[in-house]
Amino acid sequence: MPTPAYAAQAPDAALAPFTVTRREPGPHDVDIDILFCGVCHSDLHTARNEWGGTTYPVVPGHEIIGRVVRTGSHVTRHQAGDLVGVGCFTDTCRTCPNCRAGEESYCEGGISWTYNSQERGSGERTHGGYSTRIVADEHYVLRIPGNLAPDRAAPLLCAGITTWSPLRHWKVGPGMRVAVMGLGGLGHMGLKFAASFGAEVTVISQSPSKLSSDDAAMKAAKNRFDFILNTVSAPHDYNRYLQLLRLHGNMTLVGIPPEAIPVRANILVGQRRSLSGSLIGGIRETQEMLDHCGLHGIDCEVETIPMSYINEAYARMLRSDVRYRFVIDLASLK
Amino acid sequence: MPTPAYAAQAPDAALAPFTVTRREPGPHDVDIDILFCGVCHSDLHTARNEWGGTTYPVVPGHEIIGRVVRTGSHVTRHQAGDLVGVGCFTDTCRTCPNCRAGEESYCEGGISWTYNSQERGSGERTHGGYSTRIVADEHYVLRIPGNLAPDRAAPLLCAGITTWSPLRHWKVGPGMRVAVMGLGGLGHMGLKFAASFGAEVTVISQSPSKLSSDDAAMKAAKNRFDFILNTVSAPHDYNRYLQLLRLHGNMTLVGIPPEAIPVRANILVGQRRSLSGSLIGGIRETQEMLDHCGLHGIDCEVETIPMSYINEAYARMLRSDVRYRFVIDLASLK
Repeated sequence: MPTPAYAAQAPDAALAPFTVTRREPGPHDVDIDILFCGVCHSDLHTARNEWGGTTYPVVPGHEIIGRVVRTGSHVTRHQAGDLVGVGCFTDTCRTCPNCRAGEESYCEGGISWTYNSQERGSGERTHGGYSTRIVADEHYVLRIPGNLAPDRAAPLLCAGITTWSPLRHWKVGPGMRVAVMGLGGLGHMGLKFAASFGAEVTVISQSPSKLSSDDAAMKAAKNRFDFILNTVSAPHDYNRYLQLLRLHGNMTLVGIPPEAIPVRANILVGQRRSLSGSLIGGIRETQEMLDHCGLHGIDCEVETIPMSYINEAYARMLRSDVRYRFVIDLASLK
Repeated sequence: MPTPAYAAQAPDAALAPFTVTRREPGPHDVDIDILFCGVCHSDLHTARNEWGGTTYPVVPGHEIIGRVVRTGSHVTRHQAGDLVGVGCFTDTCRTCPNCRAGEESYCEGGISWTYNSQERGSGERTHGGYSTRIVADEHYVLRIPGNLAPDRAAPLLCAGITTWSPLRHWKVGPGMRVAVMGLGGLGHMGLKFAASFGAEVTVISQSPSKLSSDDAAMKAAKNRFDFILNTVSAPHDYNRYLQLLRLHGNMTLVGIPPEAIPVRANILVGQRRSLSGSLIGGIRETQEMLDHCGLHGIDCEVETIPMSYINEAYARMLRSDVRYRFVIDLASLK
């Protein structure tokens, strides 16, 4: 079915109106009327081919909230009228050890990303949430708690689960000292989650418009933190911050800086510190995160925009001029 | 008391006979007649001031096995005639969180290394096991199981605990696939320990005289290992080996290469991998390791040498021409 959307047609082209063709829902599919879609840095990187590998035209968007319009004959998890979400991927192999363990985001058998990827089976290009409708297999569609505002819930599908998953994996909880580096879309969610788990949370940000750090504070914080969630992709001195970890402490990267990170072995060895990375999270874990948000009233700080504002939003995002996430209101495209 | 020893007098000087003065044993001290002392790469680095900070003259040696000659009046843990060991440190602050947790090797309050360091309190220079006697506080003296050959037990005090501690910390056991990188003094002990814990162990070595690796084997091993013990200090492509880790896998460095390690974030993020470092181990853990060795008959492969052979041993060690550890027989100095 033809669906209004916004697409990039080339690395240097502004996003512009475009029509995507969504597949007819199969027996396991859910057809979703999109209400809101968050604007992630990955959208911009892909639209501009900054990571390489973009196939044009591309419709970005993987923080999708919508309402179920209809369901395939075998669908049991969702029904028409439900508020649902779609995150960074819409299908995986379902047979590799990671899929079987519920860690679909680490699928080794071939993942279908929500955009700039291929549907398993048909091989059709996937297109994301900068559009009015999406069709997805029910297993990869999440339930959104009814008490969450749909626009403020949208970024949970990427910024939320990306910060939730490492905090849970490294068992952040009461009695732990946690630092969050960077206070953007990801960082502000990491801060909310870590606090909701009962940890003592410190924000480390270089931007003078947010929280600041200085040499005295850095010195006082040496050997202080059990866990550092590092959301900063811009170049910075990783070794300086690794020294803030106490014995057995862990720093986890959730951004992917393009350059290799120069790590000093003596800083890791000296207090048995670890440097890790983490990528989104699985479907079961994403649902747990959403349910926790419903229970504790946790959502994202957003600035809601019409679809036509997207190019200006990208420009402002590059200047960190947003607290803390843009969310597109798809009513503007209907 | 004056004690025969071998010392380095300058970075470019061969080790030569020297006399150290050991303190008279205090009420908590143990006076030890040294039987054997292992030869560690750290000895050579320190003798030649390759890490900076060497104060000359320096008597190296921190893999010490000996027999108790006499004990101070308050000593309860050891008695004359006991076979005992002294490892990399002979005192710590005993009050910092890490000391209180039994993690003395990560002491934040000031550690007394066995050589090229200062005694707490007196400030006297410490000197290591290339000598016939040593005096140490009973808390930092280990019991050696009677069924272990003293020369083959000596390297357990550094090479042993350095590999034991990370294997235990990361819970290596049955059902886990472990790789050991480098088959030297440390690597061969890591291999023995990991196997004794029931793990499936693979050795990765670049040296054609030991086990070899090739591109096909590397490709087949992608996403394979739960844990990699990296004992290689020479420059190598860390990212290539990090890719051998499966989801949630960990590579721990037990050597300290002088140059920063360029780590690609996408390789950590892609399968939630971790890069860590680890430094020796605490006293309680060292005793557990020694008791395990006694129980399972685990010891080191050594080439026993007279004290006068030390400079040739250093030259051969630099060529990796030893399987797998030189151990000095101190009878040669008496």
